[in-house]
Amino acid sequence: MTPSAPRPEDDRPAPPTRRRPGGRTARIRTQVLDAVLAELGEHGYDGLTMDAVAARAGVNRATVYRRWGDVGGLLADVLDAAGEDDWQPPDTGSLVGDLAALNHEIQAALTAQPPVVTALIAASFRSERADRAQQRLWEDRYARCEIIVSRAVRRGELPSPTDARPLLIAATAPLYHQLLLLRTPPDPHLPEHAARTAALAASAGAFAEPPSVGDT
Amino acid sequence: MTPSAPRPEDDRPAPPTRRRPGGRTARIRTQVLDAVLAELGEHGYDGLTMDAVAARAGVNRATVYRRWGDVGGLLADVLDAAGEDDWQPPDTGSLVGDLAALNHEIQAALTAQPPVVTALIAASFRSERADRAQQRLWEDRYARCEIIVSRAVRRGELPSPTDARPLLIAATAPLYHQLLLLRTPPDPHLPEHAARTAALAASAGAFAEPPSVGDT
Repeated sequence: MTPSAPRPEDDRPAPPTRRRPGGRTARIRTQVLDAVLAELGEHGYDGLTMDAVAARAGVNRATVYRRWGDVGGLLADVLDAAGEDDWQPPDTGSLVGDLAALNHEIQAALTAQPPVVTALIAASFRSERADRAQQRLWEDRYARCEIIVSRAVRRGELPSPTDARPLLIAATAPLYHQLLLLRTPPDPHLPEHAARTAALAASAGAFAEPPSVGDT
Repeated sequence: MTPSAPRPEDDRPAPPTRRRPGGRTARIRTQVLDAVLAELGEHGYDGLTMDAVAARAGVNRATVYRRWGDVGGLLADVLDAAGEDDWQPPDTGSLVGDLAALNHEIQAALTAQPPVVTALIAASFRSERADRAQQRLWEDRYARCEIIVSRAVRRGELPSPTDARPLLIAATAPLYHQLLLLRTPPDPHLPEHAARTAALAASAGAFAEPPSVGDT
């Protein structure tokens, strides 16, 4: 789900509102997480070091070690910070429109330069802390997206009830599969096409609850 | 697409028939690639070394270095060897049956212990040679699976022509997304459900060529 991480330039982590806004702690966190994103975009996970992050952030090394522990801790906090924003899924007035707009956001995030989102996902294969944070972020994003389905049910576009999560997975999975795993060049029609395919199946009751077969 | 790599025990690389069958070169390759899979299953990419592979295979270190160069070369050859088998997609007599059986194979490969397939995919994020070999293997597997779609067209289950590749991606992507990226526990109903969803959309013309809109 996108944005799965902020990009350094235009989408930096929201200030952590649970801490004193504008306080020194929050400011250091922003500096450090921005530095992580910049280093990750330039050098990838293999080139990411605590020392380079501290230097780039202009923050004392000891502070960075004490607060984040290791590279996995830095990545986990970047991902947690990404989930602290107020992102909401697109609201275009139709199911296909919402899913297509969502897919366009995903495609943009997965093809952005520098490839920060891709680097974070790749890092989640290597750091358990980053992995758990990535799963939390995805869970949060998919949960926020469920409103796309409930709006479509309310508009009469989908049977009631429709199981939101598998529909959202069906609509978005082809993007991740092609861009992250198969690594095919971005197909400009895929966001719309994957959205239409999932919506077509959903309208035909593919995600209607309870399942049409008597599964346990 | 599965099997995306052989498992050490029960599905070892087919002898490379392009070389002298049973020859010393082929035998060494089999020993080395089996050792790679065993080491990968036990220690993952981070624990995979040329020396450990040579020792486990009982093959001279110099031979391993000369022939495979580095760990990326070993992984690439494991993936290439996996593509040299005579795997064919399931032929159950129906589109949904074929796609569901395919998805069951994918789910089994992605949840197998030791997690060799997952480790190979993770490694493809880190080694360019492994990455290219993984892409070749997937391309080969999806190409072989296109017969599932042409059989369904011939049986009248799908409109003619139907674009095979995006249909196969739609059917299989949710498995990879849930198991590899979201890392949710395996859902025993997902192979069948993802197959039904894609087949439903396909029957409704979601993958009929040419696209219903006048795209270029």
